[in-house]
Amino acid sequence: MIHPNMATMLGFVMTDAALDPSILKVALTAAVNQSFNAISVDGDTSTNDTVLVMASGKLGNAPRADTTDFKRALDAVCRDLAWMIVRDGEGATRVMELTVRGARTDRDARLAAHAVATSPLVKTALHGGDPNWGRMLAALGRSGARFNVRRVSLFAGKVQLVINGEPASYRDKDAAKVFSRERVPIVLDLGGGNASTVVLASDLGHDYISINADYRS
Amino acid sequence: MIHPNMATMLGFVMTDAALDPSILKVALTAAVNQSFNAISVDGDTSTNDTVLVMASGKLGNAPRADTTDFKRALDAVCRDLAWMIVRDGEGATRVMELTVRGARTDRDARLAAHAVATSPLVKTALHGGDPNWGRMLAALGRSGARFNVRRVSLFAGKVQLVINGEPASYRDKDAAKVFSRERVPIVLDLGGGNASTVVLASDLGHDYISINADYRS
Repeated sequence: MIHPNMATMLGFVMTDAALDPSILKVALTAAVNQSFNAISVDGDTSTNDTVLVMASGKLGNAPRADTTDFKRALDAVCRDLAWMIVRDGEGATRVMELTVRGARTDRDARLAAHAVATSPLVKTALHGGDPNWGRMLAALGRSGARFNVRRVSLFAGKVQLVINGEPASYRDKDAAKVFSRERVPIVLDLGGGNASTVVLASDLGHDYISINADYRS
Repeated sequence: MIHPNMATMLGFVMTDAALDPSILKVALTAAVNQSFNAISVDGDTSTNDTVLVMASGKLGNAPRADTTDFKRALDAVCRDLAWMIVRDGEGATRVMELTVRGARTDRDARLAAHAVATSPLVKTALHGGDPNWGRMLAALGRSGARFNVRRVSLFAGKVQLVINGEPASYRDKDAAKVFSRERVPIVLDLGGGNASTVVLASDLGHDYISINADYRS
């Protein structure tokens, strides 16, 4: 039961910095949106989740100091924790790091990423180590995102699978190698704008079924 | 790859009745909306689907005759075919016939039915024969449908599992018996209006994973 809008999780982040609560709130919201709210294991959302950040002030810094470094560190910590949640997802064996870029708007980027990241066909292909770009484009097609398929490109690591909506010329072996990794970086470029988003999604394998069909809550 | 907006399917329905094409079109649209467009196996939609209806006119009836019986028969044929598609879904062992009623609007009914019918947690529970009403209410909660949880009831066959948003008093054995059937009738009553919808959804089991993680298209 792990999906954007957080997982079944209690997250606590602590810092010694002296920070105003209002600054902490803005920084945490930004960090959560690109970490705990950008993950998907099974598409079901949790009914129990919390992320707290606490600042002790022990560092004794000026409360209105530049917070650029703090925000960068908070983003990194939240992204690391989010990665661990997906990697530890029910039965997960690998994680797709899906970047959607070239979208007209943030909404288009999110719609496309959501459809691809939650598709059971994409997730089972990921489980099987299969660079099945057709399933990804099919999920994109039903996503509701606006795009021109003739401008769509798809990459697995450095291997280009799709160019201008058509299969690119690549060695199957090279693509399969990327899909055999623990972290599979996928870039879906819609070629239509500047909006982008990143989602982490686990694969869907037999252990997910065993874990969720065999226990009763 | 089977979901509302039809499955990967070619459907042909033939009749000897004499019927005007415009009447046929309206009748088919209505029949498809409550059959082929009200099924879900995995939440992924197909890129190839067709339903055709053809009328030979061999019956020689008056072309403007009452079409009530014809429409009823067309609905029944389409529903039967839709049932067969879901029952034959990738790795399916049983089918949930989910009725959402008491919704404020058709949209609320559809949102609720969609979330419950496509939830991997509901589908794995169905596979395990587990009357897990908590997973159904959790899916309802994230569906976007408007409802008051204190008015929500849930039934498996004649067994009431949830009353006014709380667990009802029932024998676990009776509920488990309904979930052991090939067709599991579930009624989710939102208690807030008169809109309703019915969706057929298959379970999610190991064979779905085997079929979709082990082949490459």
